[in-house]
Amino acid sequence: MSNTVHFKKVAIVGVGLIGGSLALDMKLKGLAGTIVGIGRSIANLNIALDLNIVDSITQDIAEGVRGADLVVVAVPVLKVASVIEAAAPYLADGAIVTDVGSVKAELIKEVLPLLPPSVSFVPAHPVAGTENSGAGAAITGLFNGRNCIITPVGKGGPDNPEAVEAVTGLWRALGSNVVIMDALTHDRILSAVSHLPHVIAYTLVNMVANAGKGLGANGSDTDMLGYSAGGFRDFTRIASSSPEMWADICEMNSTAIVEMIEAFESELDSLKRVIKKRDNDSMKAEFNKAKALRDALIKGG
Amino acid sequence: MSNTVHFKKVAIVGVGLIGGSLALDMKLKGLAGTIVGIGRSIANLNIALDLNIVDSITQDIAEGVRGADLVVVAVPVLKVASVIEAAAPYLADGAIVTDVGSVKAELIKEVLPLLPPSVSFVPAHPVAGTENSGAGAAITGLFNGRNCIITPVGKGGPDNPEAVEAVTGLWRALGSNVVIMDALTHDRILSAVSHLPHVIAYTLVNMVANAGKGLGANGSDTDMLGYSAGGFRDFTRIASSSPEMWADICEMNSTAIVEMIEAFESELDSLKRVIKKRDNDSMKAEFNKAKALRDALIKGG
Repeated sequence: MSNTVHFKKVAIVGVGLIGGSLALDMKLKGLAGTIVGIGRSIANLNIALDLNIVDSITQDIAEGVRGADLVVVAVPVLKVASVIEAAAPYLADGAIVTDVGSVKAELIKEVLPLLPPSVSFVPAHPVAGTENSGAGAAITGLFNGRNCIITPVGKGGPDNPEAVEAVTGLWRALGSNVVIMDALTHDRILSAVSHLPHVIAYTLVNMVANAGKGLGANGSDTDMLGYSAGGFRDFTRIASSSPEMWADICEMNSTAIVEMIEAFESELDSLKRVIKKRDNDSMKAEFNKAKALRDALIKGG
Repeated sequence: MSNTVHFKKVAIVGVGLIGGSLALDMKLKGLAGTIVGIGRSIANLNIALDLNIVDSITQDIAEGVRGADLVVVAVPVLKVASVIEAAAPYLADGAIVTDVGSVKAELIKEVLPLLPPSVSFVPAHPVAGTENSGAGAAITGLFNGRNCIITPVGKGGPDNPEAVEAVTGLWRALGSNVVIMDALTHDRILSAVSHLPHVIAYTLVNMVANAGKGLGANGSDTDMLGYSAGGFRDFTRIASSSPEMWADICEMNSTAIVEMIEAFESELDSLKRVIKKRDNDSMKAEFNKAKALRDALIKGG
C-alpha cells in the first residue's frame, strides 16, 4: 500500500488480547510514533511494558490520552462509554477515537453525546480473537486476513470521512479486510455468527450437567459431561470465554440476540419434529445442507 | 495386563474409521491371529489391505465370518441388524458378535431375535472418532484413554459373562476405559453429549444461512456465514460430519434425542428471558457456571 497511515501518538485504553495485539502489530509495522497503554490493572500494564507491547503505561486516563491523535478504546463493550466520558475533556482537537467492540448500535448511541465536536468517533470491530485474555495473550498477526467491520456514525455525529479513511487504512495495514456497514446490520450479523453460538455453548454445558441429575443408580447423579468426547469439547470451547465480557455483550446487543435465539428455536423445533417422526430423508436433507454450507466456509478460509 | 485377550480369527464388517482403527490396533498389539475385512466397497477394502490394516478382504459376508471367534460389526447403526441377519447362518458356535454403534437400546431389540443361541452378542460403543471416514482415515491409538461403554444384553438374551469379559478385555488392551451400563442410560448420555451437539451444529449453520436472507441493501441477501470467525468454525466443525450417519443415529435414538432437545430448549428459553431483561448478573451467573464446568472438563483430559 502506498499511503500507509501513521499516527504520532496512539493511546490504547485496555491492553488485553485485542488492544495488546493491535499495539504489537502497529509497532511492528511502524504505524505509530509512540504507543501508550492505559488501564486499571498495573500488573497487566507492567506485562504489556515488559513484553514491549507498548512504549509507556499509565493508569491516568487524562495523562494517557493527552496529545494522542488516535485513541483506541479496547475495553469490554459495556465500559466503552464510561472510558470515553472520562477521556473526553482531555482529548486533543482533531483526535480520532475508535473502539473494537462487538456491539455497535447501542454503543454509538451512548458515545456520541459524550464527545466534543472537534473529535471524530469511528466505531470498528475487528472480527478476531481467542478465548484467552490479558496483555500476555497478545499475539502478532491476529488481524491478518480477518474481517474488520467499520460502522461510520454518519453525518449526524462527530464523524468525518478522513477519520473513517484513517481507521480503514490502519486495519488494512494490519492485513484486515475492512467492510463498511451500518451499525444495526453489524449487530444482527454478529448476533448470529458469534453471540448466539456463545449463548448456545453456555446453555448446552449447563443443560448437560443438569440432565445427569438423578439418572444414576438409586437416583444418584450421573456425570454426563465425563462421557463427552472431542466433538463436545471443541463445540463448547467458546463456553470457556470470559463470562463478564459475554454478559456485557448480551446486555448491550440484547434485541438482536433475542431475535436470533428465536430464529434458532424455530429452526430447532422443526428439526425436532422431523426427528420425532423418524423421517430419515428430511433429516438427511437438513444435515446435507448444513454440511455443504459449513464445508464451503472452511474452503473459503 | 496379565490376561490379554486373543482371538484366532477376527472378522470386521465395515473397515471405516472405527473398524479400521480397531483392526490396526489389534494387529499392532497382537490380539488377533488373523483379521478379515468385510465390506461392500471393494475400493475401500483395497485401501485397507494396501495400508496393512487387515490381513485379507472379502465382499462375501458368509465367507468372511466363517470360523471367526469375534465378529465386529462396524457399519452405520441403522445397518447393523441387517448385517447380523445376513451373517447369522454362517456364524461359528461360540462366536462373539459385537458392534461399535452410538445407539444401543433399539439396536439390541433388533439384533437379539436374529442370533442363534450358540452366539453371544456384546454391544459396545467406543466413544471416539473424528469427522473423517473410510479406511484411509484409520489411525492407531484412536481408543487409547477414551471411554468404551459396554451395555450387556443380560440374561434375557444371547449373552454370557465370558463374552462380556472378552470384549471388555479387548477394549482395555487398546487402552480404553471400559464402563458397563444399561442400554437406555447409554442412549440418554450419548444423546446429551454427542447427538444433541450435532443436531445443534447442523441447525445453527442452516439458521445463520437463512438469517441473512433479505438483510442486505434493497432486500438482497447478506452472506452472514462469511463474517464468521474461528469460534464459529470450531463450534460447527461437527456439522461437517456424515449426514447419512447422523440421520441414522437420530432415527434410531429419536426418543432420547427429542427428550434432550426439549431440555435444551427449556434451558435456552430461560436464558433468553434473562437476556431480554438485560439482567447482567443472572447472565454472568449462568455463564460462570458453564465456564467452570467446561474448564474442569478440559483439565480432566
